[in-house]
Amino acid sequence: MRNVKIVVEYDGTNFQGWQRQARGETIQGLLEEILSRLDGRRVVVHGAGRTDAGVHALGQVASFMLHREMPSLELLRALNGNLGPEVRVREVSFVEPSFHARFSAKAKAYRYVFYLGEVVSPFLHRYVYHCHYRLNVERMRAVAPLFVGQHDFSLLCSKSRPGGSTVREIVQLELTEQDELLEVQITANGFLRSMVRRLAGTLQEVGRGRLSAEEVERLLRGDQSVPAGPSLPAKGLTLLRVEY
Amino acid sequence: MRNVKIVVEYDGTNFQGWQRQARGETIQGLLEEILSRLDGRRVVVHGAGRTDAGVHALGQVASFMLHREMPSLELLRALNGNLGPEVRVREVSFVEPSFHARFSAKAKAYRYVFYLGEVVSPFLHRYVYHCHYRLNVERMRAVAPLFVGQHDFSLLCSKSRPGGSTVREIVQLELTEQDELLEVQITANGFLRSMVRRLAGTLQEVGRGRLSAEEVERLLRGDQSVPAGPSLPAKGLTLLRVEY
Repeated sequence: MRNVKIVVEYDGTNFQGWQRQARGETIQGLLEEILSRLDGRRVVVHGAGRTDAGVHALGQVASFMLHREMPSLELLRALNGNLGPEVRVREVSFVEPSFHARFSAKAKAYRYVFYLGEVVSPFLHRYVYHCHYRLNVERMRAVAPLFVGQHDFSLLCSKSRPGGSTVREIVQLELTEQDELLEVQITANGFLRSMVRRLAGTLQEVGRGRLSAEEVERLLRGDQSVPAGPSLPAKGLTLLRVEY
Repeated sequence: MRNVKIVVEYDGTNFQGWQRQARGETIQGLLEEILSRLDGRRVVVHGAGRTDAGVHALGQVASFMLHREMPSLELLRALNGNLGPEVRVREVSFVEPSFHARFSAKAKAYRYVFYLGEVVSPFLHRYVYHCHYRLNVERMRAVAPLFVGQHDFSLLCSKSRPGGSTVREIVQLELTEQDELLEVQITANGFLRSMVRRLAGTLQEVGRGRLSAEEVERLLRGDQSVPAGPSLPAKGLTLLRVEY
């Protein structure tokens, strides 16, 4: 039995997210179905980030145990031959038994893309959030460093499950503008549910002039009287990579 | 009554091509439906290039007569508000009555994209042709100039309708490589049906070493004993722009 690590890229538009569900197609569900057929037994696939419905990935990582012996290139082709074109396995490697895609992850990087122009290209519309507000990007850039470091993000995620720490460390948060696209890249040691989308929504409120730097600081200190930004649409979000 | 010129961008994946048809959604059909409703009478839309099912456009041009008086920005928004996100009108302008999107066109530019790598990205698969052959791009580049100039392309199109000239002039044919993408850009004063896709297919045969420069010359002189390349898949083709 070998422990396998795969790197997966997907266009999440037509999926119900990463995590296996009773109804609807998911990336984990698809992979488990193919691998279980291949291995002749139930294979459980662990993903590094449980991306929500509509969220994309360039470098999602997953791991699973496989009984069947086969070369990595053959396994890659068997997977891609059975997945649709919207999901591609880019790398297959055999790793030590202790490796676990989620628990071994040291950091993850996500990107959130705002489209600030008038007309969204048909070639982009599945991958960007069309923001209709005028944003002051310099204001957004100025508050970005406030998020970096260790904070309790309980006010910047979806309602947290009882128990479990809501403290995470953001190691990098960068804004880059190109033409009418504004890209926010966030690297952290872990993410809470909807955290990137609410962070992006909070940055949007700053860009609109509806939140000040001082209010962002209060949010990050847990002041519930400050309204955090909304969770922005899933389509603008992409899991870029997972670091181990 | 005013003559209107529009520039249209579309992802052709889910369309039956440009031209109105009895069954299936087409770009011309959609535009005519929206404009006829808007104008309260039947509006006929003329496109510069009648792209086939699955072919994309960045700068398709179309023209039509409109009775209703409205500012160009309002018309642009009315169109985009009624089209799905896979078709976007990028520009609307009022032009002299003699302008006709097809008959006034002086040149058109198309792009055909080969993907030469192992795994096609989910974000690209709708827009590239995955070529499984090893291509000698230098050989392809060397024959490219042979196509430039005025030629009878009757052997490099789909079966031509009886009558009508099959002579066209290619003014530019360029190959550019970036990472695993090979892009062929062709500008001509006009194109026959399937011409770009068969030209791309013929270049592919050259790249595979199955056609020589001398055979390409013979093809362009109408030598039917030389087998032209196949018409490559529609998804790799994009109408880039129309010049007037």
